[in-house]
Amino acid sequence: MAGTSSHEHDAMRRALVLAAGPDAPLHPNPRVGCVLLAPDGRVVAEGAHRGAGTPHAEVDALSRAGAEARGATAVVTLEPCNHTGRTGPCAEALVAAGVRRVVLAQRDPNPLAAGGAATLRAAGIEVATGLLEAEARELNRVWTFAVEHGRPFVTWKLATTIDGRSAAADGTSRWVSGTASRRDTHRLRALADTMLVGTGTVAVDDPLLTVRDAEDRPLARQPLRVVMGERDLDPAARVLAPVDGIASPSLHLRTRDPHEALAELAARERRHVFLEGGPTLAAAFVAAGLVDEVVAYVAPFLLGAGRSAVADLGITTITDAWRPEVLDVAVLEPVVAGEQPDVRFTLVPPVRTPAAGDA
Amino acid sequence: MAGTSSHEHDAMRRALVLAAGPDAPLHPNPRVGCVLLAPDGRVVAEGAHRGAGTPHAEVDALSRAGAEARGATAVVTLEPCNHTGRTGPCAEALVAAGVRRVVLAQRDPNPLAAGGAATLRAAGIEVATGLLEAEARELNRVWTFAVEHGRPFVTWKLATTIDGRSAAADGTSRWVSGTASRRDTHRLRALADTMLVGTGTVAVDDPLLTVRDAEDRPLARQPLRVVMGERDLDPAARVLAPVDGIASPSLHLRTRDPHEALAELAARERRHVFLEGGPTLAAAFVAAGLVDEVVAYVAPFLLGAGRSAVADLGITTITDAWRPEVLDVAVLEPVVAGEQPDVRFTLVPPVRTPAAGDA
Ligand SMILES: NC(=O)c1ccc[n+]([C@@H]2O[C@H](COP(=O)([O-])OP(=O)(O)OC[C@H]3O[C@@H](n4cnc5c(N)ncnc54)[C@H](OP(=O)(O)O)[C@@H]3O)[C@@H](O)[C@H]2O)c1
Ligand SMILES: NC(=O)c1ccc[n+]([C@@H]2O[C@H](COP(=O)([O-])OP(=O)(O)OC[C@H]3O[C@@H](n4cnc5c(N)ncnc54)[C@H](OP(=O)(O)O)[C@@H]3O)[C@@H](O)[C@H]2O)c1
Repeated sequence: MAGTSSHEHDAMRRALVLAAGPDAPLHPNPRVGCVLLAPDGRVVAEGAHRGAGTPHAEVDALSRAGAEARGATAVVTLEPCNHTGRTGPCAEALVAAGVRRVVLAQRDPNPLAAGGAATLRAAGIEVATGLLEAEARELNRVWTFAVEHGRPFVTWKLATTIDGRSAAADGTSRWVSGTASRRDTHRLRALADTMLVGTGTVAVDDPLLTVRDAEDRPLARQPLRVVMGERDLDPAARVLAPVDGIASPSLHLRTRDPHEALAELAARERRHVFLEGGPTLAAAFVAAGLVDEVVAYVAPFLLGAGRSAVADLGITTITDAWRPEVLDVAVLEPVVAGEQPDVRFTLVPPVRTPAAGDA
Repeated sequence: MAGTSSHEHDAMRRALVLAAGPDAPLHPNPRVGCVLLAPDGRVVAEGAHRGAGTPHAEVDALSRAGAEARGATAVVTLEPCNHTGRTGPCAEALVAAGVRRVVLAQRDPNPLAAGGAATLRAAGIEVATGLLEAEARELNRVWTFAVEHGRPFVTWKLATTIDGRSAAADGTSRWVSGTASRRDTHRLRALADTMLVGTGTVAVDDPLLTVRDAEDRPLARQPLRVVMGERDLDPAARVLAPVDGIASPSLHLRTRDPHEALAELAARERRHVFLEGGPTLAAAFVAAGLVDEVVAYVAPFLLGAGRSAVADLGITTITDAWRPEVLDVAVLEPVVAGEQPDVRFTLVPPVRTPAAGDA
C-alpha cells in the first residue's frame, strides 16, 4: 500500500487481531482495534472496543498511552467516529491527544458516523486510508452490510431431505437434519442478534427459538425472537416465555411486509436476522430480494411427500430458477452413532430476484 | 490366510489386476484373472477372461503354459466353472492339464456354474478357498449381486434442486444439474448394461438414453434402452431410433410390475440397470425394495414449484422416512465457467422398505 510503512502494516494486522478478541462485540456495534505507534515505529499502546457503552478502540488506546500519544500514529481498523454517541467522538479525542497521523482500514459506512477523516484532516492530522481494507470489511461483514443498507443482513436457514421436504405429510419434522447440522445451526444462531419465523411455524412447531449448546443448555446471550404475521399468537407459545431465567425478549411483528419488518428491526439496532422459515415466510423474503445468505442443510433421505422447504416463488420455467452462487459446501459428519452425514451449502443469492426474472 | 503361501498371495493380487484389465468384460460375464505357479513359486503363465465367447481366465492361462501346467498351482479369482457354456468347463480343463493345486478367492455365486471346487477335489486336486475374497467380490460387485439375487442390480439416479425439484412447473428440466454432474452421469451409465425410464419420461422429455462422451459423441458400446409402462410409445420417440449407426437396441416392457420387469431383464442376461426416473417409476422401485444403490445429484438452486424427484412413497410421518446409508459424498466442481458445484450422494438403501415400515 502506497503511503504507509511496514510498521503501520504490522500494526494494522495487530489491530485486526485486537478487534476480533474474545470479548469483542457481536452486535450492534462493529469490532474495532487500534494500535498507537511512536515516530520510530515502536508500539506505544493497544486498544479495542468491547461493546456498546464501553470506550471505542481509539479512546481505549489513548487512555493507555497517556502522554505518549502526542506525536504518535494511530493505526485503526475503522474510520474514527465523528458523532457523539454513548461515548464522545473519537476524531476529537485523537486531535486532543496530539496524534500526528492516522492510518485507517475501512471508511465508516454509517452516514451518522462518517466524516471522522475530514475532521482529522481539518485539524492538520495526516490521514491514510484503505490499508487492509478488505480484511477489515470482512471482520465486520454483517455490520457493514447492515449499516450500508440501513437494514439487517438476512441469513435464511433451511433443512431439507434430498427430495426437498422440510416436514413429512403429517407435519412432523423432528428431525430432518442430523445432530451435527442442528449443533451447527445453533452455532450460527449465536452469531445473529435476531431469530425470525412466521406465525405458521409457531402454530405448528411451537419452537423455543433459543440458542443452546451441545448439552441443550441455553447460552447466556440470546437473540431477539421475532414472529412475523397478522394472526394472534397463542399466549402459551413457548417463543413468548422467558428462557430459564435468561433475558430473552420476543417480539410479534404484525405485518406480512418483509421490508416493513426489516425497517422495524433496523430501528431496534438489529444487524443480523436468522430466518428459519417456514416455507411461506422464506418465499416472501426470497421474492422480495431480501435474503442475503442461504445456509441449506440437505439430509440424504427421502420422504416422497410433505411440506417443501420453500413455497411457490412464482418461477414457472427452469431458466428463471433462483440460482445463487455457492460460497461453500461442507459435509457434516455425524456426531452420533447411526446417523448419516448431511451436506451444508452456503449460498449468496443472485442479483436478479425471481420477481425481476418474471418481468 | 492359513493354508496359502506368500507366493500364492502375490499371485492372487496379480490375478485381480489381470481380471480388471482394460479389455475385461463389463457384462454379462464376471471379470476373472488366473496365475499359474510352478512348485517353486515361479510364475508359469497368466490369463484373463475378455468377455462372452472368449476363453475363461483358467483356459487362457493353461493354453499359454502348455506342458508347464503339469504339477502347477492355479491361482484364480473366481471358482472355476463346472458347466459347459460357450466354452468347456474350466474345472475339467484344470484336471486334464495336470494342475496339482487350485487357490481361489470367490466361490461362484451362480447356481448353474458352482461345483467347480468339488469336481477338482474329486479328481484329487488340492483346493484352498477365500484368499482375498473381499477384493474379488468387490471386483465383480454388480455381477455377484445379480447372480446371487437372480435379477439385475438397480442403480437409481436422480437430479434435484435443493428444494427437491426435478423439473420446473412447466416441465422444463434442462438443466437441473451442471455439466460436471451430467458428464459424471454418462460415466456411470457406461458402467451399466441397461438404461430404464418410464413411459412418462419418454412422453415428456423424449430422451436419447445413450452414453456420450464429453464432446457429446455416443460411445461404441451402448446399454440396452428400456422403457417401462403400459402406454404405447410414439413410434418417432428418439429412444427407438438407432444411434449414429451404432447398434443400440431398445425395448418396451409393457408392465408396471418392477419384479416382472427385472425378471424379464435377467432372462436377457442384464446385470446392471441404471434407472433414471421419472418420479413415478422411481417411487415404484423404491416401494418394491428394488433399488440397490442411489446416486443423487443435488444442485444448489431453487425452483419453488415443479415436479418432485420422487413421487409419493406412502410415507406419512418422519420416523418412517426412507433412510439409506451414505457411502460417499462428493462435491462436483464446475467444469464450465459460471456454473456452480453440485453435490453427489451415493447411497445404499435401508433394509426396511417404506412398505415394510407401514405394516
Ligand atoms: N425444516 C425446516 O427448516 C423448517 C423450518 C421452519 C418451519 N418448518 C415447517 O414449516 C411448516 C409451517 O409452514 P408455514 O409456511 O405455515 O410457516 P411460516 O412461513 O412460518 O408462516 C406462514 C405465515 O406467516 C405469515 N406471514 C408473514 N409474512 C408473510 C408474507 N410475506 N407472506 C405470507 N405470509 C406471511 C402468514 O400468517 P398470518 O395470517 O399470521 O399473517 C402465513 O400464514 C411447519 O410444518 C414447520 O414444521 C420447517
Ligand atoms: N431430473 C431428473 O432426474 C428426471 C429424470 C427423469 C424424468 N424427469 C422428469 O419426470 C417427468 C415425468 O414424470 P413421470 O412420473 O410421468 O415419469 P415416469 O416415472 O418415467 O413415467 C411414469 C409412467 O410409467 C408407467 N409405469 C411403469 N411402471 C409403473 C409403476 N410401477 N407404477 C406407476 N406407473 C408405472 C406409467 O405409465 P403407463 O400408463 O404407460 O403404464 C406411468 O404413468 C418429466 O417432467 C421429466 O422431465 C426428471
